[in-house]
Amino acid sequence: MVPLETGAIRQALCRITIATRARHVHDVSDEVDRWLAEIGAGEGLLTAFVRHTSCSLTVQENADPSVLADLLDALDRLAPAGAGYRHGSEGPDDMPAHIKTMLTGASIAIPVVGGQMDFGTWQALYLIEHRARGRPRTITLHYLGS
Amino acid sequence: MVPLETGAIRQALCRITIATRARHVHDVSDEVDRWLAEIGAGEGLLTAFVRHTSCSLTVQENADPSVLADLLDALDRLAPAGAGYRHGSEGPDDMPAHIKTMLTGASIAIPVVGGQMDFGTWQALYLIEHRARGRPRTITLHYLGS
Amino acid sequence: MVPLETGAIRQALCRITIATRARHVHDVSDEVDRWLAEIGAGEGLLTAFVRHTSCSLTVQENADPSVLADLLDALDRLAPAGAGYRHGSEGPDDMPAHIKTMLTGASIAIPVVGGQMDFGTWQALYLIEHRARGRPRTITLHYLGS
Repeated sequence: MVPLETGAIRQALCRITIATRARHVHDVSDEVDRWLAEIGAGEGLLTAFVRHTSCSLTVQENADPSVLADLLDALDRLAPAGAGYRHGSEGPDDMPAHIKTMLTGASIAIPVVGGQMDFGTWQALYLIEHRARGRPRTITLHYLGS
Repeated sequence: MVPLETGAIRQALCRITIATRARHVHDVSDEVDRWLAEIGAGEGLLTAFVRHTSCSLTVQENADPSVLADLLDALDRLAPAGAGYRHGSEGPDDMPAHIKTMLTGASIAIPVVGGQMDFGTWQALYLIEHRARGRPRTITLHYLGS
Repeated sequence: MVPLETGAIRQALCRITIATRARHVHDVSDEVDRWLAEIGAGEGLLTAFVRHTSCSLTVQENADPSVLADLLDALDRLAPAGAGYRHGSEGPDDMPAHIKTMLTGASIAIPVVGGQMDFGTWQALYLIEHRARGRPRTITLHYLGS
């Protein structure tokens, strides 16, 4: 346990837009790390937040792509289409997408070390598009640190 | 991507209490935005944390109220009452409530822009009461920023 | 609602390692509070992040141990072994572990008051080992505050 203390704390804020594909898991780690490099981040805290309610963020394995396919299938089992939902005006894939977002989360906070998200060897940050059609999705990034 | 940098970072902290209704999804966005206005928040990071283990926080759609009813039903399917739980001393709705809290989360971090949570058009912050009886619920709010 | 404002914001960062047991829920609150005491934390924000994709963090009830056993069973029902996963190279418990991590979360942000996580009476911070064999697990802790 080596505490690290820093004098001057600063912050930065931006929004990035990802053009998603239908029901797809997008690795957005490079985009986030590029922004951290741009602002000259050192040690601190990165928060990512999706400004939508039918896509979400997760930190998951980046080694075997079949993990991502299995995660999508698991979400389909947990929030099946056609389960007698009241809300159907935006299409049969909309209410399952809201449930999947509730289960996985709109926001994630990740410590930053040496200018990069402090991931383990097999981790990446993913945006999951839950809808049956891709679209532009906006993520707000916030950094606090040195 | 327009980074925004600020000189002086300050923080504020408070606890708010919500009188919940049984198995209900409460929009707490106004309460949080009112506090952000009170402390004169600019750009920063808002963290909300429930001090309980049978209610939780989620960011969800604020347009069609039937979405919220469908979310409650989905949680009932994922954590059904009477599923042979060991823990029953606090009533049959207690263990399902703990599971629902684990799946949705006790904490959420949201970037703040222009003194307000940086929500998309259709987003709001909700406190979900999972128990079969309403009660006072305390949320700790923490702000770091300009 | 009593806002608290502080002049100088500082940060601290460390990694702790927990030797987990197979499919077990570990209370890590004391370890985190000890670190907060070490760095002299006052009011602020604690973020904990697991650097793995088959274990996760949750804030849950610390009173009745049977709650924790029921939570593990609930996760087994939501992410059953042998559900026809594509990803199986790391063993039959690996893909369920990834799903459980997605549902519960790799990261949590908790306000700090008086040098301690601002828990309610019955809350504790838990690391859940989802794999069928224990191993060393690293958590990054980040603190911003007074």
